[in-house]
Amino acid sequence: MSYNKPIRRVAIVGTGVIGASWAAEFLARSLDVVATDPAPNAEANLRKYIDEAWPALTAMGLSPKASRDRLSFTQDMKTAVSRADLVQENGPERPDFKIKLFASMDASTPSDSIIASSSSGITMSVMQSPCKHPERCVIGHPFNPPHMIPLVEVVGGSKTSPETVQRAIAFYASIGKKPIHLRKEVVGHVANRLQAALYREVVNLIHLGVVDVADADTAVSWGPGLRWGVMGPNMLFHLGGGVGGIQHFMDQFEGPLAGWWKDLASFTVWPEGSKQAIIEGVLKEANDRTVDQLAEMRDEVLLELVKLREKYAAAPALVK
Amino acid sequence: MSYNKPIRRVAIVGTGVIGASWAAEFLARSLDVVATDPAPNAEANLRKYIDEAWPALTAMGLSPKASRDRLSFTQDMKTAVSRADLVQENGPERPDFKIKLFASMDASTPSDSIIASSSSGITMSVMQSPCKHPERCVIGHPFNPPHMIPLVEVVGGSKTSPETVQRAIAFYASIGKKPIHLRKEVVGHVANRLQAALYREVVNLIHLGVVDVADADTAVSWGPGLRWGVMGPNMLFHLGGGVGGIQHFMDQFEGPLAGWWKDLASFTVWPEGSKQAIIEGVLKEANDRTVDQLAEMRDEVLLELVKLREKYAAAPALVK
Repeated sequence: MSYNKPIRRVAIVGTGVIGASWAAEFLARSLDVVATDPAPNAEANLRKYIDEAWPALTAMGLSPKASRDRLSFTQDMKTAVSRADLVQENGPERPDFKIKLFASMDASTPSDSIIASSSSGITMSVMQSPCKHPERCVIGHPFNPPHMIPLVEVVGGSKTSPETVQRAIAFYASIGKKPIHLRKEVVGHVANRLQAALYREVVNLIHLGVVDVADADTAVSWGPGLRWGVMGPNMLFHLGGGVGGIQHFMDQFEGPLAGWWKDLASFTVWPEGSKQAIIEGVLKEANDRTVDQLAEMRDEVLLELVKLREKYAAAPALVK
Repeated sequence: MSYNKPIRRVAIVGTGVIGASWAAEFLARSLDVVATDPAPNAEANLRKYIDEAWPALTAMGLSPKASRDRLSFTQDMKTAVSRADLVQENGPERPDFKIKLFASMDASTPSDSIIASSSSGITMSVMQSPCKHPERCVIGHPFNPPHMIPLVEVVGGSKTSPETVQRAIAFYASIGKKPIHLRKEVVGHVANRLQAALYREVVNLIHLGVVDVADADTAVSWGPGLRWGVMGPNMLFHLGGGVGGIQHFMDQFEGPLAGWWKDLASFTVWPEGSKQAIIEGVLKEANDRTVDQLAEMRDEVLLELVKLREKYAAAPALVK
């Protein structure tokens, strides 16, 4: 595998919501994008998604020469991947389907090109199993929607080469994403596990009648969530320790944290009635605002927040 | 208790970091503040804290007539609370100490004034036990630092009147905080439990060697944390369901969420070596930046984020 091959042409395999968002992101970064999906109306839906995402991408800052005209579409997957420098796969999350798809993509993609999967539920070790060139297969799992959220989780399978992992990380970083490297394959990768851990306790506190759904959302988004929108939990604890930093924080809070752990929910099935209570509570909280209206509000604030964070990340000189 | 009594004069009992931050917040909202603390240098430290917080409070927007001149200090607790409309207590987190302190505050505070505690670790039922007027005692637990983070968790003890809870919620809301009502007393209230739930899995993934400390922070703060800085998890799942909303989300993701729950850590003690690994990882991540430098960066982004959120919350007309 030639590791100095530049990535200029990306194939998007599967143009559902995740694939379409990836396509928009890659176009905004001036890459050539060839998309493929067997579904009827796939091309029209893809172009509609990209048109709707374009104003936000423009506000976040397009790369020079970025253009929606760099998008082409074919229903033939083999054609789509045949000249790709990187394939971003977003197919249905069924192991049998993925294994067949990887065998087929592997056979048609140049052997020195990376095949990355957006899969959240199937390990690369499983997907790459039938490939002749499994070393160039890697997971690049985005957080929804990929064109808005910078995180990409990169993890190889048992046959993935370390060079492929490093090359995927470098590629995602080069287009402004924030890739992290998972050294081991675990169920749910990292971000979804952390989200599931927090949400289990949300479900628990609603189920116990401690808070209603709207107050649970306030607790996160006007409390710890505000801080997590700014920095990660380890660094925040470092700052929580004052001049003594993380060492002082640990001395002070290892006990209370372990005490809280003892009382947290550990259920692995949904408590009776909890899903319905959450559904009803959310609809009440939405208070006649449509999903589209709320999503627009989320995206506008998210966009400003990402710009704000990028500004500080790019200009550490702002910190005295 | 007279429930139409306006709250104009607040006593701060205990002027450590939490009490000092509350004092700054109340002054910024044009309230008269009387602070008390038996520690040597308490007044000087308090005034220094408030001076340092004032630029951020000014940037967030001071109320008309807000002034640091509205602060007075006395070492005598009884004098401090004797004319207060509301007491915000921030004493050491020791049950015996708190019980005595509440008995003493209760005896000296006008019986129609609220006594609120910032306690995170002791229930109001315990603290109010010796009081002659326990019905006006309530927990108003902030999230650190109180003058930056809007969340306040309000929860009564077994003898707290519902009117006191409602009055405390109305008061905190009137000064721009985001109070939530906890219907039951639980260990750690809500936000610290949610934080502990997420952090346990952070510790787990670092301990398992899946990610390093810096990548764990990236996973949160450039992934789900970004979204939690904008909206709560229930509402985000509603939007994640697309046009089908929360019902569709639950149909699709109740299975995967429960699957992840099965694999999450459930330890209640720190895994061997995990604290030290986190301390070392955080110091590496800080990369020679001091706690003060990092805290300044955190606070600047936080301040902008809160302003951004307030703008959207105040102007729902922005949502079509």
